[in-house]
Amino acid sequence: MIVRIFVTGGTFDKEYNELAGKLFFKDTHVTEMLKLGRCKLNVDIRTLMMVDSSTMADSDREIILQNVMKAKEDRILITHGTDTMVATAKVLAKGVKGKTVVLTGAMVPYTFGSSDGLFNLGAALAFVQTLPHGIYISMNGRCFTWDNVKKNRATGEFHQIK
Amino acid sequence: MIVRIFVTGGTFDKEYNELAGKLFFKDTHVTEMLKLGRCKLNVDIRTLMMVDSSTMADSDREIILQNVMKAKEDRILITHGTDTMVATAKVLAKGVKGKTVVLTGAMVPYTFGSSDGLFNLGAALAFVQTLPHGIYISMNGRCFTWDNVKKNRATGEFHQIK
Amino acid sequence: MIVRIFVTGGTFDKEYNELAGKLFFKDTHVTEMLKLGRCKLNVDIRTLMMVDSSTMADSDREIILQNVMKAKEDRILITHGTDTMVATAKVLAKGVKGKTVVLTGAMVPYTFGSSDGLFNLGAALAFVQTLPHGIYISMNGRCFTWDNVKKNRATGEFHQIK
Amino acid sequence: MIVRIFVTGGTFDKEYNELAGKLFFKDTHVTEMLKLGRCKLNVDIRTLMMVDSSTMADSDREIILQNVMKAKEDRILITHGTDTMVATAKVLAKGVKGKTVVLTGAMVPYTFGSSDGLFNLGAALAFVQTLPHGIYISMNGRCFTWDNVKKNRATGEFHQIK
Repeated sequence: MIVRIFVTGGTFDKEYNELAGKLFFKDTHVTEMLKLGRCKLNVDIRTLMMVDSSTMADSDREIILQNVMKAKEDRILITHGTDTMVATAKVLAKGVKGKTVVLTGAMVPYTFGSSDGLFNLGAALAFVQTLPHGIYISMNGRCFTWDNVKKNRATGEFHQIK
Repeated sequence: MIVRIFVTGGTFDKEYNELAGKLFFKDTHVTEMLKLGRCKLNVDIRTLMMVDSSTMADSDREIILQNVMKAKEDRILITHGTDTMVATAKVLAKGVKGKTVVLTGAMVPYTFGSSDGLFNLGAALAFVQTLPHGIYISMNGRCFTWDNVKKNRATGEFHQIK
Repeated sequence: MIVRIFVTGGTFDKEYNELAGKLFFKDTHVTEMLKLGRCKLNVDIRTLMMVDSSTMADSDREIILQNVMKAKEDRILITHGTDTMVATAKVLAKGVKGKTVVLTGAMVPYTFGSSDGLFNLGAALAFVQTLPHGIYISMNGRCFTWDNVKKNRATGEFHQIK
Repeated sequence: MIVRIFVTGGTFDKEYNELAGKLFFKDTHVTEMLKLGRCKLNVDIRTLMMVDSSTMADSDREIILQNVMKAKEDRILITHGTDTMVATAKVLAKGVKGKTVVLTGAMVPYTFGSSDGLFNLGAALAFVQTLPHGIYISMNGRCFTWDNVKKNRATGEFHQIK
């Protein structure tokens, strides 16, 4: 089994620019995180974009959708900012059939040392291997179907709607 | 869904004694790791023992088996040293019916900062929520059935036998 | 010997707000850093302010100056943002006599795990114990007198002027 | 000013062998630590040995002494295990004249993420630049002369004798 991983940015991959004192994107840390996790799963990683999900445009979601549809693998993990992860999941749900797609992200950048990113990546990779076809969000150790999940902005946690 | 977590020690939970310059066990870090992972899953954690799995006796495996059998939850995660994880899985396979049991561990102590533990914990928690009844080992981002897994001691990785 | 430590904020003490995705100040980490460094020096810590040094006003520098002058200790360490550390050192040089004052800071927040802060704190504490009276900046493993130092904004490093 | 750094091993440089589950020495981390500390001091690093100081023989101390005596720099930093740091300082005191030599070490390996090593290295580098000729031990944020220092093995801390 090969798992396709699409990187889109989000807090997951943010870094600290020590000259400007600001957060920014450079390259994804997913490869490094998989190495740290001693992951021996067969994965194929592509970076589609490196953006804050709060600035993600409809055209960006279209790029993600097209790449998911065209991927020959039917197990797909997407790293994504948490702010609009649910919106992207909805777009995917309308267009993608016959694939298991799991979106995940992080509340704290991986480079900051005390990130939830490694935990989330491990969980998302396990969910994508085992769940039936569908579009899912994996956060907080749980997995939600795309049409029954909401981010609580006050706590940063994902919940079921129903 | 409630996931029962049984802690048995292993590299996962080792700490560094700075006076003696040696590794030792104190308390489990599983609670702290779940907090770092912002895990909101309903879990119930019990520490059964804090041992190196290379020193684990038959009587220790019997304790683990009895606790798994008596647990009212049917989703059970066991943190365990990697050296004899397969042996414990075999003991469980003989006695446990109607439950999903996932064993996981780590190659590097969580307290050392560059551990695979957080990744493994995330993956194991996802597998235990989704897999059908059976005894499994979750390592290296993958999940193995108890009767088709082997640790390669030269690389520290788990492989399928067949 | 008692070393007085005045905290004024700076990158040193910045934290990551995971809900807003922004850096902010809460409490100083100096106490925690001294504990990590197993520091057994007699220190007395006061937080004067928690600000970005780029937003530091003349009135803020006046507060720092007054506190340095009034301190009964003659060994004083100031944690400070690097952007205007030199400006504050100049203000202190005009008003402070008979004391050894060392300013230090960090390029990366201590909470990010790969910070220069712990190294800088160790060096500054050593310099403040050994140098004759005067106003100094301790960065990059070196110590500069207040009137012969400049921050290179392109590299983030401090250099001698002459 | 050039500071000569001699590496002799000690907890400072220990690493974790994940296959054996044991601590061991590979290469020194001093270069990496200086980089993390953005140290721009002119340093020249030589690894003399990589040993636990509890196993250090008289012949090892002789090697250190010879290297310190032959070094053309008069500012010398030695990284050393804490257990017999005082014994080595005594050997150096008998043979070395006209140089400032500072020994330092760590209670927790640098690779473990919560080490005092970076703090100690910063402090020792500052002390070696500022102190008059003599043999010193820099630990716990303080600096001790070779003939007035003792390690308390119960606490791991260094104290004055008198």
